[in-house]
This record gives sequence, structure tokens and C-alpha cells, in this order.
Amino acid sequence: MMMGGEVPRIIINLKLYRESSGPRAVELARHAEEVSSETGISLGIAPALLDAWRVAEAVEVPVYVQHADPVPAGPHTGHVSPSLLGDYGFSGALLNHSERRMLLADIGRAVRMLEGEGLQSIVCAGGPGEALAAASLGPTAVAFEPPELIGTGVSVSRARPEAVGEAVRLVRGARPDVAVLCGAGVSSGEDVRRAIELGADGVLVASAVAKSSRPREKMMELAAGAAAAVGR
Amino acid sequence: MMMGGEVPRIIINLKLYRESSGPRAVELARHAEEVSSETGISLGIAPALLDAWRVAEAVEVPVYVQHADPVPAGPHTGHVSPSLLGDYGFSGALLNHSERRMLLADIGRAVRMLEGEGLQSIVCAGGPGEALAAASLGPTAVAFEPPELIGTGVSVSRARPEAVGEAVRLVRGARPDVAVLCGAGVSSGEDVRRAIELGADGVLVASAVAKSSRPREKMMELAAGAAAAVGR
Amino acid sequence: MMMGGEVPRIIINLKLYRESSGPRAVELARHAEEVSSETGISLGIAPALLDAWRVAEAVEVPVYVQHADPVPAGPHTGHVSPSLLGDYGFSGALLNHSERRMLLADIGRAVRMLEGEGLQSIVCAGGPGEALAAASLGPTAVAFEPPELIGTGVSVSRARPEAVGEAVRLVRGARPDVAVLCGAGVSSGEDVRRAIELGADGVLVASAVAKSSRPREKMMELAAGAAAAVGR
Amino acid sequence: MMMGGEVPRIIINLKLYRESSGPRAVELARHAEEVSSETGISLGIAPALLDAWRVAEAVEVPVYVQHADPVPAGPHTGHVSPSLLGDYGFSGALLNHSERRMLLADIGRAVRMLEGEGLQSIVCAGGPGEALAAASLGPTAVAFEPPELIGTGVSVSRARPEAVGEAVRLVRGARPDVAVLCGAGVSSGEDVRRAIELGADGVLVASAVAKSSRPREKMMELAAGAAAAVGR
Repeated sequence: MMMGGEVPRIIINLKLYRESSGPRAVELARHAEEVSSETGISLGIAPALLDAWRVAEAVEVPVYVQHADPVPAGPHTGHVSPSLLGDYGFSGALLNHSERRMLLADIGRAVRMLEGEGLQSIVCAGGPGEALAAASLGPTAVAFEPPELIGTGVSVSRARPEAVGEAVRLVRGARPDVAVLCGAGVSSGEDVRRAIELGADGVLVASAVAKSSRPREKMMELAAGAAAAVGR
Repeated sequence: MMMGGEVPRIIINLKLYRESSGPRAVELARHAEEVSSETGISLGIAPALLDAWRVAEAVEVPVYVQHADPVPAGPHTGHVSPSLLGDYGFSGALLNHSERRMLLADIGRAVRMLEGEGLQSIVCAGGPGEALAAASLGPTAVAFEPPELIGTGVSVSRARPEAVGEAVRLVRGARPDVAVLCGAGVSSGEDVRRAIELGADGVLVASAVAKSSRPREKMMELAAGAAAAVGR
Repeated sequence: MMMGGEVPRIIINLKLYRESSGPRAVELARHAEEVSSETGISLGIAPALLDAWRVAEAVEVPVYVQHADPVPAGPHTGHVSPSLLGDYGFSGALLNHSERRMLLADIGRAVRMLEGEGLQSIVCAGGPGEALAAASLGPTAVAFEPPELIGTGVSVSRARPEAVGEAVRLVRGARPDVAVLCGAGVSSGEDVRRAIELGADGVLVASAVAKSSRPREKMMELAAGAAAAVGR
Repeated sequence: MMMGGEVPRIIINLKLYRESSGPRAVELARHAEEVSSETGISLGIAPALLDAWRVAEAVEVPVYVQHADPVPAGPHTGHVSPSLLGDYGFSGALLNHSERRMLLADIGRAVRMLEGEGLQSIVCAGGPGEALAAASLGPTAVAFEPPELIGTGVSVSRARPEAVGEAVRLVRGARPDVAVLCGAGVSSGEDVRRAIELGADGVLVASAVAKSSRPREKMMELAAGAAAAVGR
């Protein structure tokens, strides 16, 4: 169950690749907007911190910062505050990505701060048990991503379908109001279709799009996979 | 419900107080052993890392290390490995204490490593939501300790009874196999009695014992509070 | 000695104040540009991470990111890479600010990465010994900021002149090629004048400008203090 | 120059190997004591945190904890305080090992706290620049250990003699009162001889001893290498 359609089917994490930074991040976001509009499948984008504002200005699709710290606006050099994100037009934040792990206590505080601002929180988790723990904190979504598959091009929905199913089952059982994404190695439309058929609401994808020589086509393929699964 | 009586009713965290370090840690553990024997209320002790082995050699009551890292035995200078704890006779480890917060991913891994060794894991949490998240990871127990009350002498069971009740309810509902302790400011027998009456299996206590001029008497008082609650 | 005039006399750290975020960051940077142009005293600006690109596009004065991680471009969600900073037109990065402390090993790596990109590194340090250690890593500048004075409005150059002098002496003796800034509580033109007379090349200032109701006037005052000290 | 002979020629870091933990740590320390006595070459030992007290009780050779946090005695669950180390008979602490990196600010504070207790601080560093930075903080010794060679069995004194020489030169030039050790891959008497001939005061060694099937013989070999270099 998607939360009122709020969390996109496909969130593209641009990470910190040179190929998806700066003006290129804006360009990729525009592709996402077009593909979303053309296919009816919702896409979101998570640009690098330095690119996020420009991207949010340029497009209407949901934009997420890649990380937020549980601090209010104030004397916090080098941090990102949930309290300020709404002013930039962001939809929310990724939290606890495997490349930016957070303290349990900080995740909980950031989730509550984002919720207080009416923003989405997408908490990444490396295993089914962690996904359940993340869901217990009441975020908008959990993104189940086994770290060992991230960046491999071997999709979690193909390599570990039973783990995806378990993560979905655990989260649904405990917190039916929390959406479930899955990620790690997602690189084809087929990967997206399988993920949704395994019960996920959508996927988190990165290098397959961010480093693609034909990113728009890749987004179209991923959206078609989602459409096949949801019957659009 | 206590897990087969495994988790002590009262765990005394000796922290890093000068008054409870070195030979004094052993002495305090001996008092705990006597009080446990005399009252029938189980007591455990969590000495400073440098003291833990000596304490475990000296007494039969459960001894916990104050922290463990999710690393196997090997090249890990300055760490504590779950894989080695059994060799010292420890019962398990505290994890994620508010004075030693851990990454969500590391807590999960440490819990699983401890379980694999047949050891207990007691995961601290600062709020009911965090307690539920901690319980989702499948530890032996969660210890609910609002950080703002730690060290104040104002007991969580007196100052925030509704929060204790909520933590108990959430954890029981999701994971009835996980014990619930509560802590922060626990300093009298009355505090212990209330905590158990609010549904906790036991308490985590620190300065009230560790810095007491009459620690044995204080332990007796706490044990009497527990006995009053459980009808012994 | 300023490094070929490269490091500004006055660097304004906008931190994460609401008053200096978003469009307001751009506005403050424009003031800095004007004041720099009118007074001949060089000013630089360090906006919040989310604001940095927009600020760099809008002004010609040096712009610094408030933090950088020692990672190359690539799969590093939620980080800031020295390798990409030049593409945005930044002059460099603050490192190890007291609100964003870094591992010694990471500071050294970030300094070398920035140098490899032809960018400046400004390493903050909380005491004279730390300032010397920071200088040993070969950054463009060290910024000596006793943490206990940060945000107080009590200037380091007034409250701890001997410490400023010692930091200057230590760094100059070991690394005459490394500029020395000082900060913490700097809030008046007089504070700036004293800092430079104590041997510093310039100052790091934050709330006095970022939270001022008349920031342009405050910048003018600070620049006048610098001008008085350097005889312009 | 050794600091009044205070820092041992050979410090054996037992890390967290199963082969060098628990009773075995005590046994290895006794070997070190005998070898030290028989050869006249000073040996020290750095056991795992859980073993350190027992080791210090059993032997007269210098014992170092593998890590210390810059905190006083008090409410600091899971930490190791410099303020308490003297009570256990330790000689000091390793700081900032590559397997336990520390914040620059914390290293400085720990060094000063150890000095205030009359204890030694041995700060590890991964490169010559970092070694100089570490020396600037005024520790008893710096231990230069390129992380890429640690645990390889390929000695730093053989693989990177020029780097050892540079680290020695930089530290001697800036702080002649700070001893210089080198480590990473040190595994033979020849490695020790070369290290000292390159200007180091001694070596930090780990797996070559800790995982040896004949550790006493290995220690004798290493001590003979040191003796050859210093002309004993």
C-alpha cells in the first residue's frame, strides 16, 4: 500500500557520481519529471546535498535530500536540518543509507522532526530485522537494501527475493501505514516488476540510472516495469 | 514475563565512576551476589570494560560488559567482540547505552552475534518508539531509559510512568519474548516497585548504588522493592 | 602573511541559522561582495551545504562549503566530495569545525584532496596545540576557535589574546606558508582589529553577521576593523 | 632518542585475536617480560581492553590499553578514562590506531589527560604528515603505521623505507622530545633492525607475535633485531 500515493514508485538516488552531479543532476531530474508524466508512474529524485536546491527549483517531482541530521536550525556548521527542508520545496529525506549510517537514536529524532514539518522520511535498512526496527520508528517508508548487493547490478529482487518478501511481511505486519521500498542492484524494468510483485511499494535505484549513457531510456524501462506490476 | 528468569530483576551499571572502579567493582559485585542470595531477587552487574574480567571471575551473578562492537575476534584494536565474551564467563552485553550510542546497523549485528554465542543482549533506548525499534531487532531485553532523567535521582517510574507503560505495551505487543527493563534516576526501593508494577521486568540502576556510601544497604532496599512487587 | 591574498580577511560562516539560509544566504553573500568591493578588504562566505551552489553562482567573492568528506566522486550518499567542489566554483572548504569534528586521518586526506584540486582548505582547531597539529597537515589556513567562546559574543581576541598569540606563534614557527585565522565570539570591528594585531591573518565570524538585523552594516564595521589593522 | 628509555623498543599489540585473548594474553605478557629481561631490550604489551588489568597485574613490563577516550571518571558507560589508568598500573595508552581512529580534538584532549596523570600516550598515524600532526599534540610517542600494510606481513621498514625516514625526520625536526615508533607488517628481526636504522626508536608489532605458534621465539628474534641495531 502506497501512502496516498505519496512515496514515488521509483526513487532515483544520484549519490555523488560525477555523471549525476551539478547541471547533470538537474537534467536527470527533468527526465524523471517527463517520464513520470508520460507513464503515470511516480518518480522521485535524491540529488547530492550540494545539488538538491537547484533540482527542487527546476522540477515538480518529489525531491529528497540524501541525509538529514536531527538538529534544529541554528549553530550547526556542515549539517542538514529537517526544520529547514520544507523551505526549499523538498518532499523529505533519505535517512540511514548504507553509505551514511546513523545512530538509532538520531534516526528516531530525525523521523519525528521530519514528520513535524509534514515531510517524508525514508529510512534505509540492510536486513529484514533492521527494516522492521526502522518501521517501528514510524517513518513514511523503509527502503530495504542489503548492502552487499548495492552497486553490483545484481538486483535484490532477483538475488534475494525471500529477503524482500520477509522485509515486506515484517513491516506490513507491524506497521501497515509504512511504505516499503527495496533497492540494491536494481537495474532493469524486470527488477522493478519483481520487486513490486514481491510486495514492495516501489524501488530505490542509483547507478543504473545515474551512470547510464541513456538515462531517460533507462527511466522509461524502469517505469514500464512498475506499470506492468501495478497494472497501469 | 522474564525470559526464563534469565535477565536479572536489577542490573547495576557501574559506569566509569571512580567509586565503582578497580577493586571496588569486585567488592560491589560481591555485595550483589550476597543480596541476590539473601533476597531471592536476581541481581546482575555491568562493570567498566577494564574491570569486567576480574568481576566475572569473582562472582556467580550475571556480569555484562557495558558495550560490545559488532566485530569478530581478529585485528580490531580497542574493541570488544561478542565472539569472545563467553570465554570470560560474561552473561552478555549492554548495547546502545545513551552514553555510548550505536548505529542502528551495528546494534542489529551485535545482537545477532551475541545470540549466536548464546549470550544476552540488553539494548538501551531513550523513548518508547526507540524501545520498540530495539525490540524488533530481537535482543534478550530492551532497557528503556529517557536520557534526560539519567543521573538525576528522579526516577523514570515516578516522573514518566505513562512513558514506561507505553514502552512496556509496545514491546509486549510486538515481541512478547523480549524482556523490558527501565532505568534513569532509579534510586529507591519504591522506584523499583513502581517500575515492576508498571509492567517492567526489572530495572537498570547506576549512581544510586555505584556512588552510594552504603551500597550493600542500597542493594537490599532495591531488592526489597522488587520483592514487594513480585510477591516474594 | 596572507597566502597571496588568497584567504579572505573575513570569512562569514552562515552556519544553519534560519536567518541566513535559502534566499537570505544569497542576499548576505551579495552584501559581502559589495562590502569587499567598497572597502578593499576581502570577504568570503561559508553557506549551509544546501545553499552553497546558489550562493557561488550569485557572487564573485570566495565561497566555502562548511564541510567536506575525504571521498572521491562516486557511491557516497549524503557526502560532499573535494573532487567535485571546483565544478561549482567554490574556493574550498572548512574542515573540522567544532560543530562538525573530523577524524585526524580524514582531515589529512581531505586537505590533500582539496590541494589536488587547487582548492583551499581551512581547518578549524580548538586550541593552540590543535592549531599546530592542523597546520602540520599543510592546509591553506587554520582557524583557531576555542569552542567555549563560540556563539557567546565574547571575542576570542578579547577574552583569550594570549591563546591567539600562541596559536599564531606556533603555526608561524612550524608552517609559515599556512595562514592563521581566529574566531569564536568575534562580533565587532574592534574584535577584528585586535585579532589581526595579535598576528592573525583574518577572522572567522558567524552569528554576529548571520543573525544581525543589519548585516551589511555589521560587515562594514568588521571590514573597517580589518582596514584599521592593516593600514588600508 | 628514546624518552629516558621510557617507551619500549618493541610494543606488542595483541589486538582482538582469539589467539592472544584471555589467559593467553597473560602468557604472552610473561614471555615479553622474560625476553625483555634476557635480552636487555625493552618490550611492552597492549592487550585487549578486557584483558588489560589481568595482564598488568601479572607482569612488570609496560602495559598499554589499546584505546582511551578523553573523558574523566564518571557517568561514561562503555568508555576508558585516562584518569583511571594509573590505578591499574598501566604505563599509558595507544590512541588513534588505524582500527580505532579518533577525532583530532579527542586525541589532543586524551594526550593532555594522560600527561596530567603521568602516563604515556602513543598516537598512531597513517602517513608522515599525520605523524607530524600527532607529534604536534605533544604525546610521548607517535607510531607511524601505513594502514595499507597493517596485517600484511610486508614490513613498513622494507616496503616504505623512505616514508619511515620522512616520518622520523619530520617528527624529530619539530618535536625532538617525542619518540617515533613504526609499525605495519613488522614480522622479523630484520624488520626491527631496519626500522631502528631508519631512525625509529622502536616498533609496534601485532600479528607476527600475537598469532605466532611460537611467540616466545618470535619475540626473541625481534629483540635480537633491535639489539643488532642499537649495538647491545
